[in-house]
Amino acid sequence: MSLLSRIIGLLQVDSTVGDLAGNAQRIEHLAKQASKNGAQLAVGTELSVCGYPPRDLLLQPDFITTSFATAKSLNVEIPVLVGTPIPAEQERNLPANGVVRAGTLNASPNGDKTNRVVAKKQLLPSYDVFDETRYFSPTNRSGICRSIGGIELGVTICEDAWQAAGLTPSTYGQDPIASLAEWGRQGVALDATVNLSASPYHADKVSSRIKVCRTAAQILQHPFLLANQVGGNDDLLFDGCSLVAWPDGQVVVAPAWQEGVLLVDLDQPSNCRWLAMDSSDALCVGTDEIKFLGSSLEGHEESSAILEDITDAVITGLTDYCRKSGITRIVLGLSGGIDSAVAACVACAAVGPSNVLGIAMPSRFSSQHSLDDAQYTAEALGMEFKIEAIDDMHSTLESKIGGVLTAGNPVALENIQSRLRGIIVMAHANAENRMAIATGNKSELAQGYCTLYGDMAGGYTPLGDLYKMQVYALAEIFNHRAVQDGSTPPVNNSTLTKPPSAELAPDQKDEDSLPPYEVLDEILRLHIEQTKDADDIVDAGYSREMVVDVLTRLERNEHKRWQMSPAPRVTSKAFGQGWRRPLASKHDWRD
Amino acid sequence: MSLLSRIIGLLQVDSTVGDLAGNAQRIEHLAKQASKNGAQLAVGTELSVCGYPPRDLLLQPDFITTSFATAKSLNVEIPVLVGTPIPAEQERNLPANGVVRAGTLNASPNGDKTNRVVAKKQLLPSYDVFDETRYFSPTNRSGICRSIGGIELGVTICEDAWQAAGLTPSTYGQDPIASLAEWGRQGVALDATVNLSASPYHADKVSSRIKVCRTAAQILQHPFLLANQVGGNDDLLFDGCSLVAWPDGQVVVAPAWQEGVLLVDLDQPSNCRWLAMDSSDALCVGTDEIKFLGSSLEGHEESSAILEDITDAVITGLTDYCRKSGITRIVLGLSGGIDSAVAACVACAAVGPSNVLGIAMPSRFSSQHSLDDAQYTAEALGMEFKIEAIDDMHSTLESKIGGVLTAGNPVALENIQSRLRGIIVMAHANAENRMAIATGNKSELAQGYCTLYGDMAGGYTPLGDLYKMQVYALAEIFNHRAVQDGSTPPVNNSTLTKPPSAELAPDQKDEDSLPPYEVLDEILRLHIEQTKDADDIVDAGYSREMVVDVLTRLERNEHKRWQMSPAPRVTSKAFGQGWRRPLASKHDWRD
Repeated sequence: MSLLSRIIGLLQVDSTVGDLAGNAQRIEHLAKQASKNGAQLAVGTELSVCGYPPRDLLLQPDFITTSFATAKSLNVEIPVLVGTPIPAEQERNLPANGVVRAGTLNASPNGDKTNRVVAKKQLLPSYDVFDETRYFSPTNRSGICRSIGGIELGVTICEDAWQAAGLTPSTYGQDPIASLAEWGRQGVALDATVNLSASPYHADKVSSRIKVCRTAAQILQHPFLLANQVGGNDDLLFDGCSLVAWPDGQVVVAPAWQEGVLLVDLDQPSNCRWLAMDSSDALCVGTDEIKFLGSSLEGHEESSAILEDITDAVITGLTDYCRKSGITRIVLGLSGGIDSAVAACVACAAVGPSNVLGIAMPSRFSSQHSLDDAQYTAEALGMEFKIEAIDDMHSTLESKIGGVLTAGNPVALENIQSRLRGIIVMAHANAENRMAIATGNKSELAQGYCTLYGDMAGGYTPLGDLYKMQVYALAEIFNHRAVQDGSTPPVNNSTLTKPPSAELAPDQKDEDSLPPYEVLDEILRLHIEQTKDADDIVDAGYSREMVVDVLTRLERNEHKRWQMSPAPRVTSKAFGQGWRRPLASKHDWRD
Repeated sequence: MSLLSRIIGLLQVDSTVGDLAGNAQRIEHLAKQASKNGAQLAVGTELSVCGYPPRDLLLQPDFITTSFATAKSLNVEIPVLVGTPIPAEQERNLPANGVVRAGTLNASPNGDKTNRVVAKKQLLPSYDVFDETRYFSPTNRSGICRSIGGIELGVTICEDAWQAAGLTPSTYGQDPIASLAEWGRQGVALDATVNLSASPYHADKVSSRIKVCRTAAQILQHPFLLANQVGGNDDLLFDGCSLVAWPDGQVVVAPAWQEGVLLVDLDQPSNCRWLAMDSSDALCVGTDEIKFLGSSLEGHEESSAILEDITDAVITGLTDYCRKSGITRIVLGLSGGIDSAVAACVACAAVGPSNVLGIAMPSRFSSQHSLDDAQYTAEALGMEFKIEAIDDMHSTLESKIGGVLTAGNPVALENIQSRLRGIIVMAHANAENRMAIATGNKSELAQGYCTLYGDMAGGYTPLGDLYKMQVYALAEIFNHRAVQDGSTPPVNNSTLTKPPSAELAPDQKDEDSLPPYEVLDEILRLHIEQTKDADDIVDAGYSREMVVDVLTRLERNEHKRWQMSPAPRVTSKAFGQGWRRPLASKHDWRD
């Protein structure tokens, strides 16, 4: 072991998909901070130069070559391992998802040359939100980078490390961690292995990553360092939480939801430090504390800490969606109910209260307390607020097509109110260059208890992956944070305590159509996240009639979920598969 | 060569995704027809027992085992090769996309046993509309079925045969046709090779399939038979056109858009026959002629024949979407313009004129000729028609939020009209249990010249993959077909000749905002189908300003295309990738 300290900077970058020049600048800036603070070398995240997931941009050959050239020409003072697509060597082959060694200085005479490709991804995930076999070709060679900043490194990319920990849904024909261990047994002495990741967030995902890194460090018998992307790209969120594990089980974890550098001292866990990104547009949500875990500590969060983390996740999602899409102003319908109150809290946190407009749109079925609660929330948050009653238009429409409406399915009558509100919200969005946000939650979307082209209208659904009871929990968190800041709690007590109602018919309550949300949420969670079928859920203690009703509504309303605008992914499983259009023609094969 | 004739029935099945029992019945019924007409054995299509594409159903282990069991227990009198998912032999492995030999009789003592798995797919496509590496594991073993109905068969599955013809976008590490040829050289004498396909349609796709089959027959030096799925599953259409090629280049092609059996006489191309499915719900669009191509004939269609075929494709798409989703009635906005007139023709062909309601919804900007043309089309088709003026609601809304509307982006004022119409159409859909269809075309969708939650509202977009000029061509075809049937041509002459207008502002014409459609369509086609960039298109003779405008609008309106309801895929390339949500955060990496 060298007498000098051996310091590696893990660059936790908030890459924007497609913004090659901007991403390069962020990487260069973070590498400079790492260098100034004593790092011999730095490690970026998976595909950091083009942002993850680049999807169909990868079908443009220019995009591959331009990303690769950008990665190789980074202007950095220490060697930096950068994730980038690598052009295929042969025609009609797919590119690789790889790593380039950038940086012109410090290349040791015996070490790897600057600009060399040092690794290509071996395990390409194609499940859940991942689609990598569509775009990339895998390799079967281990990534190794010799004498970089005086350090011998194994180099892996995200999924490469997950099979060894048993955390992939199916097995691959090779194991990169086992291969590196075999190299070690053959006499190739490595000081550490790094992993460039773009590992998406869901609640408590960090405990899986800790397992991955501890397993690899234990197998390899040297420190295992994982640099993870941070920020949001559409509905994929990356929490950062870059981390390092030592063979004895010690772990250091960087903050979530912040761009910056985790300075890792390979020989002294307690010397690890966090350097926050200092540029004005840097993502900076949540706290900047790093976590030190002894070998016996699991890293699992308490549920209260998980809810705080989900709150930050939801804020990050909308913040980055707006920043990366050039959206500066938001409009939403503010009904006085819990969903729109919490959505307003998120919107104000994302773009600032002065850029958010809430519109209350009472019909004859709306109660005064709803209007009061909406106004209370708007005032507490300091956002713009207006009232546009829809009663006259509602009546005009009823008198016009009343015959059709009253003779048919009663839902038609309810939906016209929601759609009139959609028109008003969208008119403000179009006229004032705002993005409309939809305020729905996962529980109601799962049941189709929402209106296509009505309350589902909008470019983003901040609460769309939260169950209803989680929305209540977030309300409490926003209230608590406000109190700590000396502000007025934004969600009124009556909003928190009144029975949920769509207010689309006289004295309507959600519970007239749905099970109580405490129960509904649990049934949905068992089915969606734990893939339990009706029999399993009945065995868990729910009535068969209720379970069948819930699951039937879930099937029948697939088309609505398809039309949902992006929602930050915060639960461990989205409906079916996030990216695939459901088949309307899908029969129930169990009939 | 045997003295008996050697007859194989290719079962061109209209499978419904997930309807295992229904699909099994259709296969059994077609096999019976094949048997009665002298076939020794029959060959179904890829995954015919569960329908293609099954997508996330494949993530349910029960679905795999139930499909497999259903395939093995088919009640058939001759041996039938059936496509089915095959459960993985080891835990944590993905299933295979394979073929089972069903049928209890005629198993020769030396031949393969009944219910044996005779092939697994070797090349798994994961590009464009295909996603197979997500769900399946590939094999590297050739599929061979010995002494089945007295015939020795090579067995391949769809993509397996495409690489040999150079028609895959990237290369795989193996080639199933070359492997079978190698078996032949090693002395395994095969009489023919079959291919079970679910090869989706686009215009003139059949000429690619002819090339695939001719290439394989030539390499293998025996007949190559391809059985293809027919019908629609969401926006994927399958034209059927099952075919056989002989080594000398002769080809016989089954009809498109019809369920049935192509009886193939291996020794006598001219003896091939078509047996149409005789059940009452069988898909039966277009003509039932089979095509005989000599070795010198290309099989490329004239453009007029291609347009006739596209017309049948669009009808098939909506017909099967409705049948398979249990939809019997349709509603649409009927404006008097070309798009809604042609959409009405398609709707009437799909569910019958008595089940289609068209609503004209004039605003103060609508012309009398529009109303007249709408009424003309409704009467010619014999569908229901009503008029619901939106002027009063339009005025109410303007007086309510006029300040916002007039001060801001003028598009807000136009959109409220389209969205009011959306409410009326959806109210009829909800009340009367009809599906609303959106009437937009590919050209306007590509430019964002349409309104989210307005004219884009609906469960299916029959013309969504047709360029505007193709919509005009379809109008002529529907008119011509009506004349041939002795009916009134449904699209009025004035609809065909007046300048296209959205009629959302005084004297508005589409050409005020867009290039003439003849030009726009060509620019879009060069970009979308031939993946040309701006420079290439300018070189092809278009002004740079126009090209940049068109491509900029195309980028900016990705979010609208994502919200488009399913549209039958009829052009060779959809926007970007059909199934992937575009990234709002996608920067222009060329900046």
